[in-house]
Formats: sequence, structure tokens, C-alpha cells
Amino acid sequence: MGNISKDALALHKKYQGKLEVCAKCKVSNRQDLSLVYTPGVAEPSRVIAENKALARKLSWSGRLVAIVSDGSAVLGLGNVGPEAALPVMEGKALLMKQFAGVDAVPIVVNTQDPNEIIKLVKNISPNFAGINLEDIAAPACFQVEDGLRNIGIPVFHDDQHGTAIVVTAALRNAAKVVGKPYDTMRVVILGAGAAGLAITRMLLGLHCFSGSCGRLKKQPSVRDVVVVDTSGALYAGREKQNIYKQAIAGISNNKQIHGDLADVIKGADAVIGVSGRGVITKKMISTMAPRAIVFALSNPTPEIMPEEALRAGAKVVATGRSDFDNQINNVLAFPGLFKAVVDGGLTRISEEMKQGAVDAIVRSVPHPTAHRIIPDPFTRGLSREVAKAVLAAK
Amino acid sequence: MGNISKDALALHKKYQGKLEVCAKCKVSNRQDLSLVYTPGVAEPSRVIAENKALARKLSWSGRLVAIVSDGSAVLGLGNVGPEAALPVMEGKALLMKQFAGVDAVPIVVNTQDPNEIIKLVKNISPNFAGINLEDIAAPACFQVEDGLRNIGIPVFHDDQHGTAIVVTAALRNAAKVVGKPYDTMRVVILGAGAAGLAITRMLLGLHCFSGSCGRLKKQPSVRDVVVVDTSGALYAGREKQNIYKQAIAGISNNKQIHGDLADVIKGADAVIGVSGRGVITKKMISTMAPRAIVFALSNPTPEIMPEEALRAGAKVVATGRSDFDNQINNVLAFPGLFKAVVDGGLTRISEEMKQGAVDAIVRSVPHPTAHRIIPDPFTRGLSREVAKAVLAAK
Repeated sequence: MGNISKDALALHKKYQGKLEVCAKCKVSNRQDLSLVYTPGVAEPSRVIAENKALARKLSWSGRLVAIVSDGSAVLGLGNVGPEAALPVMEGKALLMKQFAGVDAVPIVVNTQDPNEIIKLVKNISPNFAGINLEDIAAPACFQVEDGLRNIGIPVFHDDQHGTAIVVTAALRNAAKVVGKPYDTMRVVILGAGAAGLAITRMLLGLHCFSGSCGRLKKQPSVRDVVVVDTSGALYAGREKQNIYKQAIAGISNNKQIHGDLADVIKGADAVIGVSGRGVITKKMISTMAPRAIVFALSNPTPEIMPEEALRAGAKVVATGRSDFDNQINNVLAFPGLFKAVVDGGLTRISEEMKQGAVDAIVRSVPHPTAHRIIPDPFTRGLSREVAKAVLAAK
Repeated sequence: MGNISKDALALHKKYQGKLEVCAKCKVSNRQDLSLVYTPGVAEPSRVIAENKALARKLSWSGRLVAIVSDGSAVLGLGNVGPEAALPVMEGKALLMKQFAGVDAVPIVVNTQDPNEIIKLVKNISPNFAGINLEDIAAPACFQVEDGLRNIGIPVFHDDQHGTAIVVTAALRNAAKVVGKPYDTMRVVILGAGAAGLAITRMLLGLHCFSGSCGRLKKQPSVRDVVVVDTSGALYAGREKQNIYKQAIAGISNNKQIHGDLADVIKGADAVIGVSGRGVITKKMISTMAPRAIVFALSNPTPEIMPEEALRAGAKVVATGRSDFDNQINNVLAFPGLFKAVVDGGLTRISEEMKQGAVDAIVRSVPHPTAHRIIPDPFTRGLSREVAKAVLAAK
């Protein structure tokens, strides 16, 4: 990590960030100037004034994504504020472009009040074809997302839904590797933040807004999921649960078991760590069902190191890191997803579209092994396949 | 104009706008990925979390400009809203890049409430090194600018100050052509909106905020300026004057003359039309002082056509159009000005800096003639000279 940190800092200093704004057309003479600016520019403006929807065809607003963050939950760093979130958001925009040809700009915001963020995003929405919410802490992130559900362009909180898509795809392929039916597995989720709750909903095949849930049809889903936070398993009526945890408690944990991770993990087929800084011990792994699946996704320090999990009996291990096998990385999903948003002029991203993205990622590894349950981010055509599958679910 | 409109529309359709986001560094393999995104990106974020100011060095926020508009006063189109403003703002961003290498993004806003615009710009300010306010109607534009005076980055309303800079430079060179001392000329301004009031302040060598004015030292200034709006000359105590007009009325129109344009223009050495759609007649021109200077700057239809003004006795004529001599075009100023903002890490743009920009433009035409009082926008090195002069006034 030492060299990576040093090299990364040097790179950011050298380029003063990672993005630039480029011209799609040259301005070399007066004739060019009169087309891209006055007087010619009055014509596209006039046409849009008559029909606002044409702004999507005549300006970059039809193909531009905003990556919005308040810097309240940045990587492993926590609440570092908008300025410190910028390198991450620029990185995200860069990947959007490199992996899917999608134009994106970071918009970090100098407020952590969900209502102010909602108002701000609404007010800037005419510039954008879609909004990627990023690194906003739970539960504010749920409130922000709910408040932006009907603004006419898709709003996608990647820490929730991007993570859920990639984890679900990885779990489906891992189930094949360990030879267990995906839908009868018992899965424990460690962490009840943005990622944990979204993964739970997606595994259960549910879509929940503002505390009420519906079931998606025709989707493979896991029936037995238990979520564990620092106070132990989530169950209906437990204390220390915000409304979002309450909603999940009511629809997961079928047997309504109580207890901490060490209790709950016994006999589980899979554990998914998205805790931020929780710990899964070798002892816990050894109490899981045979051929256990362990996703230890916290960055930079996984809940358990892969070699320890394997030694304790796990069959398939994944982390969030690039230096181990099976990196669960949102970059497998979000570039293709936003390519679909832009190419299809989507007004929202439905649960079915997200499942389409899951299917595309699952299909991209036709013969999964313990060392390869998900594709490499550099797999050619991956974002195109994801986009196609998302649009097919339109 | 017919062909220009058609060609401009085709160009905007073809490229779906005029801008794109480009990568400053490639992401070709896992090593690249680990530097631009996780885990490497955590290091610049961590460093910025310790010292926010470093965001300007480690992200594009130190070199990115926002072009902010509510679409309330777009070109000759009026209040067409944010969507229809987008092609103009994209054009502006494009020129920023092409003429000065400055990265800029349009941010149109879905509100015309000055207080909401102020709050929004403050909240997104961590992303930007400077704010170019654009096409916001008076008097809201003055309120917005006042509210953003101390946000730590420069806020520059181009319709006011960019126009004032270029007009002032043009007038100084025009005075040389007609052989009159600049400071003793009698100047009439037709139009008391954003441009008219800003030009007046700059010609008088004043800087006024929120109704109170101070005089700049060591700047050439005109002593006799009268502003005319649709109700006639502005004078102290006149009815139908907002507080911004009142402030100007109190410091201009020395002789406190009353009357409409036809009365006021008699004997004037120069008239500057920034009325939006006002009219200057040949008859009026013929009543002006000998060797009159006529700037008919409204677009697309000037207050009087150049050939008519010349026939009526004007000696130097300028318009806002590229198809006549002497195009008064803000593109002579704003790219260089924002280059200075970015290169110098400026926190504000002072009146002295604006005068520096005026001086640079004046100097770029060392031997002005009636056909050439200001430089061509494509003059090599112009934005560099403007930036240098602005920074010299720091």
C-alpha cells in the first residue's frame, strides 16, 4: 500500500486531478464562432425554449451524469467532507468514461442536510441525464434517494445498488462453485448501512421504498437472509433500529433469531461483510456450513483476510481489493448502467433493470471457479452487455 | 442568419452538445485502476481531509470554472429557463477552453429565486475555482452577486463586468480615433440593466456594492455619463428606479438633466446601446457632437445599423455582431480573466484587475482606426496578455 499511496498522490498532483473538459467541435474562425456561440446558438436555445425535452438532444445534458456526494462516508475514511471526496468522485467519473464512454462530472456539496441536498439536486437536474449518489452516509442516503425518486431522471445510489448488483452476481456464481442451490442458501449480512440493506433487499428479490416492500416476480432470490449490525441480528421489534433497519428486520430473518454475529453465522452458507470495520474470525468461519462462501468486502481492511478464511474452511472468498482473487468492484456495474441511462434516455432505473445488470455480470463468467466468480473489470464489452441487459428490462 | 441558424442547429444535434469530459490519465490495467480509484485514491483524499486547501492542487477543483445561469435573460431570447440556456452556457465553456485552456462546465439552475441561487452556488463552490454568472436578469443578478461576494472564490457576472471591460477598452481606443480626450467625453448609455449599469460604473472609475460607491485611483475615467432607460434619463430622486438605478443616478448625470434619449443624446460624444431592443435613430445621431462614437450592441438587432449611423455622421461604429467591423464581444475578456483566476488561485476579482484586463485589450490594438478599435477574438496570445495584466494587478 505504501507505494500505491505515494504513486497515487504523485499522479493527482501531476495532473491536478484526473479530468478535463474537452470540445467536441473546433472553434478556429469567425464562422465556427458564429455557430457554437452568438448568433447561431440562439437557434438551439429557441428550439429548446419551445420544447424543453429537446435539451437532451441539443446539449450534453442528454448524456451527462452527475456524481453527487456530501463526503459523509468516503471509502474507509468516513465523514471527511466534500473537498476530500473530490478525488474519489473524479475517479468515478474517469471510470465512467473509460469503461463505458459516459461523460460524468463530480458535484460535491457543502451540506449534509438531506433536505438541502434534495433541493440542490432538483435544482441542478436540468444539466444531467442521471445522478449517481455516492459516499453519502446512511440513513441520510435513503432519505435523499427517496426525495429524488420522481425528478424525471434516474437517481442511483451506487454504494447501495451498485454494490448489491455486483454482490448478487458474485453470490449466484459462488453458489454454482460450491454446488448449492442459490435460493436455499442461508446468508448472513454483516453491516446494516447503505450497502448491507441494499444487498439484503436485492438478495430477497424485494424493492422497498420508505419502509414498504414489494416482491419482484421471476427473479432468483434467496429466502433466508439475516442482517447483523453492531447490536447483533436485526429482528422485528428490536431496539436501536432506524426505520430502514426496521423495514428490513420485518422481511428478513425468517426465524427471527437473536444474537451476535458468532451466534448467527453458525451453519450459514454465506457471509457478506460490508461492515466498514467489523471482524469475522477464523473460529466463526469454522462454524459455518461446509463449502462456505465468504465475502469480506470492507476496504482497505477486509473483515477477514482471504488466506485465513480459506484455512478456516471457506471454499470461495471475495474481497473489495484488487490484490486478491474475486474483487467485488462496483466498476463492473455502474459504467454499463449509466450507459443504459444515457443511451436509453431512462427516467428511472427499475429493480428489473438492476436484475438485468446482475444477469449480464453472471453470464460474463460462464464457467465460474473458486478463483473467478466475477469478471475482470477490463473484460472487453462488459459495460456494453450490462447496458444491453438493463435496456432489455425497460 | 437563416443559414447560420440551420447550421448551428445541425451542429448541436450532430454532437449532442459541444462538450465532453476527458480523462487526463489512462486506465489501462489494474495498476492504473488502483492509482486513480481504490485503494490509491484514499491517499489524496486523506491528505485533503487534513488540509482542505490542498483540494485545489490534487483535484480539478483548482482549475474548474462553473458557468451558472437561471436562464432568465438569455441572449435576445429573454426568460427562457434553464434548459434553453444550456447551448449558450456550453458555448461559453467551449470558448473558455479554446481561447484560454480553462476547463469549465455549465450549471443551469431550476430556480430564479436569488436566495436559492446564492445558497446553491455556495453549496457547490468546493468543486470550482471560480464562478461565471451568466444571463441572469437584473436586478436579481446584482443580488446574487452581492450574496456571493465572500465565498472564497471569484464570482464574476460576465454580462456586467465582461461587457464593461470590453466596452471600456473599445471606447478608449475609439476616443483616440476621433481625437478626443477620453476623460472629457460626454457619454450616453442606453439601457439600465446588468450591462448598462456595469459599463457606467466602469467608465466612471467607480466600484459600487449594495448601493455604496468608491472611486478607483489612477484609472482613466469619463466624468460625464448619463444613463437612459425606457422612462428616460436616470437622475437622483426619479420615480421608477430600483435601488441599483438609484445608486447610479446619484453618481452619474452630473447636470441631473431630465428627458428621453432624443433629448439626452444631443451634443453627446458617444452613445452606448445595451438596451436589448431599444432604438437609436439617424436623427438622434445627427444631433450628437461631431465625430460621434456609436456602439449599438444589442443582439441580434443593433439599436441602429452601422451604415445608417455612419451616414448620419457617426465616425466610429461598433456592434455585437460578427458580420460588421468592431465586434464588441465578451470573448475578448472572459477567457483571459478566468485563466488568471485559475493560474493565480484568485479568491476575488478586484476592480483593479478588471482595469488590468481593459488595459491589455487597449494595448492589443496599438494603432486603432475607425474600422478596428478592438482586436479580433482570434488574436494570438490575447487571453495570455489579459491574464498577465489581471495578475499584475493582484
